[in-house]
Amino acid sequence: MKRIIRIGVIGQSERPWEPLPQYLKDLSYRIGYLIAKEGWLLFSGGRDGVMEFASKGAKEAGGITVGILPSLTIKEANQYIDIPITTGLGMGMRSELMVQTVDAIIMIGGKNGTLKELSSAYMNSKPIVILRGSGELADSVQSIFYEGKYLDSRRNVEILFADSPEEAISILRSALEVR
Amino acid sequence: MKRIIRIGVIGQSERPWEPLPQYLKDLSYRIGYLIAKEGWLLFSGGRDGVMEFASKGAKEAGGITVGILPSLTIKEANQYIDIPITTGLGMGMRSELMVQTVDAIIMIGGKNGTLKELSSAYMNSKPIVILRGSGELADSVQSIFYEGKYLDSRRNVEILFADSPEEAISILRSALEVR
Amino acid sequence: MKRIIRIGVIGQSERPWEPLPQYLKDLSYRIGYLIAKEGWLLFSGGRDGVMEFASKGAKEAGGITVGILPSLTIKEANQYIDIPITTGLGMGMRSELMVQTVDAIIMIGGKNGTLKELSSAYMNSKPIVILRGSGELADSVQSIFYEGKYLDSRRNVEILFADSPEEAISILRSALEVR
Amino acid sequence: MKRIIRIGVIGQSERPWEPLPQYLKDLSYRIGYLIAKEGWLLFSGGRDGVMEFASKGAKEAGGITVGILPSLTIKEANQYIDIPITTGLGMGMRSELMVQTVDAIIMIGGKNGTLKELSSAYMNSKPIVILRGSGELADSVQSIFYEGKYLDSRRNVEILFADSPEEAISILRSALEVR
Repeated sequence: MKRIIRIGVIGQSERPWEPLPQYLKDLSYRIGYLIAKEGWLLFSGGRDGVMEFASKGAKEAGGITVGILPSLTIKEANQYIDIPITTGLGMGMRSELMVQTVDAIIMIGGKNGTLKELSSAYMNSKPIVILRGSGELADSVQSIFYEGKYLDSRRNVEILFADSPEEAISILRSALEVR
Repeated sequence: MKRIIRIGVIGQSERPWEPLPQYLKDLSYRIGYLIAKEGWLLFSGGRDGVMEFASKGAKEAGGITVGILPSLTIKEANQYIDIPITTGLGMGMRSELMVQTVDAIIMIGGKNGTLKELSSAYMNSKPIVILRGSGELADSVQSIFYEGKYLDSRRNVEILFADSPEEAISILRSALEVR
Repeated sequence: MKRIIRIGVIGQSERPWEPLPQYLKDLSYRIGYLIAKEGWLLFSGGRDGVMEFASKGAKEAGGITVGILPSLTIKEANQYIDIPITTGLGMGMRSELMVQTVDAIIMIGGKNGTLKELSSAYMNSKPIVILRGSGELADSVQSIFYEGKYLDSRRNVEILFADSPEEAISILRSALEVR
Repeated sequence: MKRIIRIGVIGQSERPWEPLPQYLKDLSYRIGYLIAKEGWLLFSGGRDGVMEFASKGAKEAGGITVGILPSLTIKEANQYIDIPITTGLGMGMRSELMVQTVDAIIMIGGKNGTLKELSSAYMNSKPIVILRGSGELADSVQSIFYEGKYLDSRRNVEILFADSPEEAISILRSALEVR
């Protein structure tokens, strides 16, 4: 029987006055593409920004995409979501649910919502890979890390860094193997 | 763009001393099979009993199955679940989430957990079809209905009855069209 | 150390065209009053109807009232709520939460929302007392009971009936003692 | 009618090998004491560490304490909790619920769980005061702040700092007045 692997991609959404920069679109797309090529399921918050481009990449590689959405309406989902889970739980709880249900997390860029998901993934001891050079919190959050790799002195799980989408996938592959 | 339709199938789980009767296995399988043939997504609680046989039917018809599970472990999912959502929310909240995220509900047999989902679907004014003759609460719950088709005098949504899996699908098709 | 006892009161809310009948106001008030006199905490959905009058009774007996509310705004709470929990979880999940957090349930009248809470309390094997003669589902739901006292053949917990608020309290007192 | 104000206190829990340092016990106690003296309700995660000493302070000042607990058992609550909300939602979701239901947040010390609550409070634009000098993340998190006072460039709400429990209360008083 095929083992099911669910990867959560976290990163910033867009605002009309805050469009996703092209390099983040590319990185997100590439991550999504590679996840699907591995045969893994792509989970995200299902909305725009990093979530949308990662889902687009996964779809174009023939994968399946799941969006864990805040409200009860499917209209919130981006067009690349196959399985919309319209939770009605609101922004905060739905991202908690998303993190709880996946096997590992990849972080690309990210603002506060992404920080909360990173913190939640660490709380749940999920394997986490941060894409270095993707900007925003992905590049600044390490300054509060304990020993450069934990979110606190409890050392729940070592947070890993990758310099490219390919490396991120390769790190995850290893991390998931030992589980 | 293809419209996404999510159908939740509710009905009893099994206990070692309470195996699902063959006729319920058959009805559940047939419902799942027909849902997938329509191109609809099959949602359920992801565990055994009616959930398992409906998911099996959907898989054998080439469909996609989603299981909204109570705990955090994927081991709880039956083998026909493609997309396990391991919520960690517990029995009650996870079935609330399942009902909230689907577009319509089909009820087959059912014990107390199914009653709660029926009540929740009615609260959310989702189209509901009860498979008549499938036993348990599917056959007895009408005795508390208001005017024979509502769960209370507020008339949120008319609860419909079907005499066969084929009729259930046909009723849902109409109900979903007008939405 | 004082033992903390939390009692959930469930029953219908009001609509402008569906005001709570005077006898239900009186029964709800009396139940709330007696709960507080026992030194128990009164939990409810925190809104109008049975919830409001039970909370009023509890306050006038010097008790403490908790309201587990659907939305994020405190304005939804009735004026007798001391501790508003503004969950943002929506109607269905918040009532699930309310039932999960209490030690026992008293049901007065009730429409579909109350049925869902009754079903949820039974799922969680909480002691449940239904106030007979309070109308609506409190008087009709027994017709679907298994052996006249269970919501299904799994016999999670025996559902008890009382003919007066005083008897309801007395039954709960016994039920809670043995826990 | 008295206005209800709910203050959430966040900060680290204890481990057998990680007892709360005396200065954190004192600060937490003092914060809880002052919250109760204002007539505000004290909310916390209801467990040990900062949560326990803040609740102790509030009780000794005659206040009311609410604990939003992860599991379904009241045994998890510290002895100073008046109103245990046993959510069954798990660590992550219950802290989400706690933050959503309060009017403002005070942060004392804190490890990863506290970071998640800080992030969640900012997401919900709640007034937040960090007690400077209380150690751990309370002292280090500012290094990732945007413009020294926001969790990201979206500037949801300005995060404030206080040098003493008294100043924290005074800042909150002003912040709550303008709401």
